Amino acid sequence: VATKRYLFTPGPTPVPPAVLAAVGAPVLHHRSSDFLPVYERVLGRLRAVCRTENDVLLFGASGTGAFESAVANLVSPGERHLVVSAGSFGERWVAMTSAFGAEVDVLRYAWGETPDADDLRARLGESEAKAVWLVHSETSTGVVADVRALAAAAKDAGSIVVVDAVSSLGAVPCETDAWGLDVVVSGSQKALMSPPGLGLVAVSAGAFAATGSAPRFYFDWERTREAQEKLDAPFTLPVSLVAGLDVALELLLDEGLETAFDRHVRLGRAARAGVKALGLELFSPDEDRSAVVTAVRAPSGIDSGDVIRSLRDRFGITIANGQGDLKGKIFRLGHIGWFDLFDITTQIAAVELVLADLGVDVERGVAVTAALEGFSAEPSRA
Amino acid sequence: VATKRYLFTPGPTPVPPAVLAAVGAPVLHHRSSDFLPVYERVLGRLRAVCRTENDVLLFGASGTGAFESAVANLVSPGERHLVVSAGSFGERWVAMTSAFGAEVDVLRYAWGETPDADDLRARLGESEAKAVWLVHSETSTGVVADVRALAAAAKDAGSIVVVDAVSSLGAVPCETDAWGLDVVVSGSQKALMSPPGLGLVAVSAGAFAATGSAPRFYFDWERTREAQEKLDAPFTLPVSLVAGLDVALELLLDEGLETAFDRHVRLGRAARAGVKALGLELFSPDEDRSAVVTAVRAPSGIDSGDVIRSLRDRFGITIANGQGDLKGKIFRLGHIGWFDLFDITTQIAAVELVLADLGVDVERGVAVTAALEGFSAEPSRA
Repeated sequence: VATKRYLFTPGPTPVPPAVLAAVGAPVLHHRSSDFLPVYERVLGRLRAVCRTENDVLLFGASGTGAFESAVANLVSPGERHLVVSAGSFGERWVAMTSAFGAEVDVLRYAWGETPDADDLRARLGESEAKAVWLVHSETSTGVVADVRALAAAAKDAGSIVVVDAVSSLGAVPCETDAWGLDVVVSGSQKALMSPPGLGLVAVSAGAFAATGSAPRFYFDWERTREAQEKLDAPFTLPVSLVAGLDVALELLLDEGLETAFDRHVRLGRAARAGVKALGLELFSPDEDRSAVVTAVRAPSGIDSGDVIRSLRDRFGITIANGQGDLKGKIFRLGHIGWFDLFDITTQIAAVELVLADLGVDVERGVAVTAALEGFSAEPSRA
Repeated sequence: VATKRYLFTPGPTPVPPAVLAAVGAPVLHHRSSDFLPVYERVLGRLRAVCRTENDVLLFGASGTGAFESAVANLVSPGERHLVVSAGSFGERWVAMTSAFGAEVDVLRYAWGETPDADDLRARLGESEAKAVWLVHSETSTGVVADVRALAAAAKDAGSIVVVDAVSSLGAVPCETDAWGLDVVVSGSQKALMSPPGLGLVAVSAGAFAATGSAPRFYFDWERTREAQEKLDAPFTLPVSLVAGLDVALELLLDEGLETAFDRHVRLGRAARAGVKALGLELFSPDEDRSAVVTAVRAPSGIDSGDVIRSLRDRFGITIANGQGDLKGKIFRLGHIGWFDLFDITTQIAAVELVLADLGVDVERGVAVTAALEGFSAEPSRA
């Protein structure tokens, strides 16, 4: 039987058919006159999505690869850097900056906590940091940090601000220039509605001026910037993915960023309303900023892996487990990118069926309606 | 009008429809039970294509990115390394190993010359090198080096052997284990008949044991090997491209590597026969090993860029210009991957028409026939 498949993870995310069609079209040469207009449009549209006048550099790599470009270009051995970590991705950036020889100061929170700008200000008062490394949306916990406030604290201390916006860009506001974010890193496979394989980095003049001595070639910013200025990628780009991203960015910008942000707020509201109506406990914060992924505690005595496997086997639905110590304890309902209300009601309805099947005493017959109502209520944008 | 498009460059190369269909299929999660069998098959098929029992590591990156993994893992600052360079890609590896702090000894040839194992043996007799970095197929010139002989010279001197097989793997014999190649680097967009965006590296136990101190994370071999053993990619893979590569590798292995090598020998023969029948001068060697790309000198007084632009504008055909100092002086007819005889006759016929149009005194009406005959003659495998 041809079971329908539903991809509801917070990356990779579902990709619109028009984007898939572009990805599956015959390959163009990266220096051909057919491809160059696509490349130029993508670079311009990425600036629009990042809300920056700075260069946005495009790499054939995952979001982690693009993040490594920031580390390789900004970190010199022995320098002091501060990483704010409250989850799996924060820990990844601690490991990466350490691997490149930084003396890393970690402002560390328990997974699921929300980083606080006052904490950062206090820590930077104790010791300086060349750069402060922030996670906008900690996909492992569902927490979206107040990057604007955190960045202001870092700027006040004279630090360069680097933001992991991999799962946030295009879903929640990320005002690169207005908030003074020196470096914003993202990837194609989250709210940008494309397959994985492209990483991007918006880089300010200040960040370009602060590049260090770590060895680099593929991820070298200056080489990439000079090449992009001539529309002549330094290395063969994944042209199929660039063609897809071009279509996806057009869809996003046609919808309008503000409209997309509102949609994501509503999707988060719907998911939380549904989860609560089932009688389950939220792990991610119950607030409008939680617009990327809704993390839910597995009911007492239930391994979240069993929920996930049942969703897969009964309904062809893929959602995400917890990471690290949270594996088996939470499950995560994604809603970034090409999601609408019915992707939420599908997730909520399926979770209801699966939990009932697992013998959990969930509220029956109310959660989908609660999700519908959560979506329709007027969002109170924080 | 819907002009047909012909991609005849030596990378990206034409991609079969079945591969494009897989690339454009709905995205799978990289840890889902739908994707893991694809991932496992690709890793196994890559071993078959590389003819190795070693691990073949897969990266979301171009061939250059995969090559950087070799540099970042093998080069420590101040070590002596020897790069054999006879073209654009050789020079790229000189620049990259230098960027990572190696003391680089360059065995340098004029672009278009064929590296010689005796030269390498003599140079290694003068001074040792931790690793010898070789280019199998120098795509910029059309020269395919005798990697077996070069590798033997390097092994005799006790060096690790690293081979850039980006445009050779799958087109000409590359016997990783039999020839003692420690590291073989390739990419998806050449003879592997897939879109660009995936890089691969076959790594021997000896190479794993020789890793150095350069900082690395995304391209770290050990992290990737451990993750692949669990079929749990360390970072989100370009799943769409992996799905395409799976289909492409199946096509290649179904054809059979030896059959594919023979086909490429015949394609090269056909291209050279056609070029010579036009009265043009070959830049790449007139020998069976030149099975990847046929480089042709532009006729006296003609800029090869004009040939290329005319092919594009009149016929929708994309071929490659020379690189570096050869730009404007040669043009390159590609024939790796999903090419058959008629892709050669199309190129030869179009070049004939375009040159005649440019006022060049070419032989008319004989080149296509010569190409057909070149393809059918029994290859004398060197």
